[in-house]
Amino acid sequence: MADVARRAGVSMATASRALSDHPHVAAGTRARVLAAAEQLSYVISPEASRLAGGVTGRVAVVVPHISRWFFATLLDGLEQVLREGGLDVLLYHVGDAADRRDFFQRLPARRKVDAVVVLGMPVHDAERDRLELMGVHIVAAGGQVENYPYVSIDDAAAGRQAVDHLIFLGHRRIGMIAAIDPAEPGWPVLPGRTLAYRAALADAGLPAGPELVVTVPWGGLSGADAMARLLSLREPPTAVYAHSDEVALGAMRTLRRAGLRIPEDMSVVGIDDHPMAELADLTTVAQPVLEQGVLAGRMLLELLAGGSGTDGATVPTRLVVRGSTAPPRR
Amino acid sequence: MADVARRAGVSMATASRALSDHPHVAAGTRARVLAAAEQLSYVISPEASRLAGGVTGRVAVVVPHISRWFFATLLDGLEQVLREGGLDVLLYHVGDAADRRDFFQRLPARRKVDAVVVLGMPVHDAERDRLELMGVHIVAAGGQVENYPYVSIDDAAAGRQAVDHLIFLGHRRIGMIAAIDPAEPGWPVLPGRTLAYRAALADAGLPAGPELVVTVPWGGLSGADAMARLLSLREPPTAVYAHSDEVALGAMRTLRRAGLRIPEDMSVVGIDDHPMAELADLTTVAQPVLEQGVLAGRMLLELLAGGSGTDGATVPTRLVVRGSTAPPRR
Repeated sequence: MADVARRAGVSMATASRALSDHPHVAAGTRARVLAAAEQLSYVISPEASRLAGGVTGRVAVVVPHISRWFFATLLDGLEQVLREGGLDVLLYHVGDAADRRDFFQRLPARRKVDAVVVLGMPVHDAERDRLELMGVHIVAAGGQVENYPYVSIDDAAAGRQAVDHLIFLGHRRIGMIAAIDPAEPGWPVLPGRTLAYRAALADAGLPAGPELVVTVPWGGLSGADAMARLLSLREPPTAVYAHSDEVALGAMRTLRRAGLRIPEDMSVVGIDDHPMAELADLTTVAQPVLEQGVLAGRMLLELLAGGSGTDGATVPTRLVVRGSTAPPRR
Repeated sequence: MADVARRAGVSMATASRALSDHPHVAAGTRARVLAAAEQLSYVISPEASRLAGGVTGRVAVVVPHISRWFFATLLDGLEQVLREGGLDVLLYHVGDAADRRDFFQRLPARRKVDAVVVLGMPVHDAERDRLELMGVHIVAAGGQVENYPYVSIDDAAAGRQAVDHLIFLGHRRIGMIAAIDPAEPGWPVLPGRTLAYRAALADAGLPAGPELVVTVPWGGLSGADAMARLLSLREPPTAVYAHSDEVALGAMRTLRRAGLRIPEDMSVVGIDDHPMAELADLTTVAQPVLEQGVLAGRMLLELLAGGSGTDGATVPTRLVVRGSTAPPRR
């Protein structure tokens, strides 16, 4: 289908509409698509296109949190690509470890889908093996995993960008608010973000006292609480690195309520570039979330088309300097 | 299934697991569920449960925006209920009017689903009629629609709560930032929120000069622009009512950048109670978004079980007073 679309100079969606005799396609466009399909010996049959995409024409997308921006945005990008590829998306929310076990046990046995995409959560080796045995492909997006194809940022690199920025500004006493996923307490979601902090401080010869690190469940209000703990230290940090923007925005609320100025009294940097980061003038390390969903979708289409697939893809992050970071007061 | 679960004193999910011989169910629980099923003559067969839920066991959920908090949260609540009811969710993102037309033309003909739930978008009479002819149920959530079952807030009542709060505080010159959905420009998504503003001002005998109303596409940055336009008036308002929290948060950025204090120099109120509203100390009218998704799911399960259904359900909203509103300076 991609080849037909390319040869006809139209989008996959348009090519698909033209081939399925859809009424909203201009006659000229349809003729071009049909000609391209003929040249490429493309078989115009729902059965064939189903087989090309697998058996069911459906992909299960599994998410631990539907309503959180990061997961919903991954889903957005993924759905776009799978729909253009003629695949339907079956959405499964798995709230905790028991839910997840249940999902991986039941889904392949029911033969409901050709593939599973997991967004921002782990899959254990036994689960992956089971899917592969049943002929179900698996791809991950939004999390670094080593044992199956994934799309992700490099958490360690992103963390370095954030902490190195604070060090470059002249901060010497830097706190960290580490966020863990309450739904996956056993999965160190962001070890890279924590390791980056320790490595950056060590490289700069700066102290990394345990009192400067606060670990909380992910969330804005948790970030607010964590900031309060840092402010209660005898010697608070002059800058704080938060594992995510939503956590950082919570930390900023505590600073505001305490009458402290950002960035004059305290610098704050996050990771994500959540839409609210721009509205709050939060300096952050931006990650392309929609793009990770899109790339995971393309990776899956390749696998379903019989391609060998890749081990994984890492998308770059970049520092976005806004108004929440500045050199410390002398 | 609901009756079996109730009689056995377990959740629908547990009852379903017990009946399908799932390994992660305690022996005692399984025995209780099986006894309850026997008493109720529940037929334990996938075929029968498929028939009870319709033909395909699948529901299409159609959303104009996947990654926005409001839509993702509706989807979250809806998915929970449908999954417990043994139905799978097929997710469809429809980006614009052409996409929507395409969706309603193709889906029922393919007989892929038993029902369609639309989240926060209109369905035209012809589209609804077509679905009903094909035996596909339709339910809406997150928008007031009059021609099929829906779950929604009362936009006019929510708007009154916001504007009456500003009037009660003593504001006499009140601006409005009205948000329209760029994906559905023809659908006056929020007429109730606009009508409420005019009605509240009229009831209080206050001026409603056209310069006090700025209409922008939905979004935080649009809210920032709209606030700038209100600040450029010869006589700016002392308080601003925004149609949604994300728009209000954008307006607050403009105020902050202009060096104005919130609420001393300008009060701001929104609608939604977005998670970020709490972090930004934004006064708002809270709507229960997850609950709207849950109720729409229950409404659909009733329809699929052969119930007559209801015309619609309106969930209440409530004012949440935070730090962004106060009486005007004298």
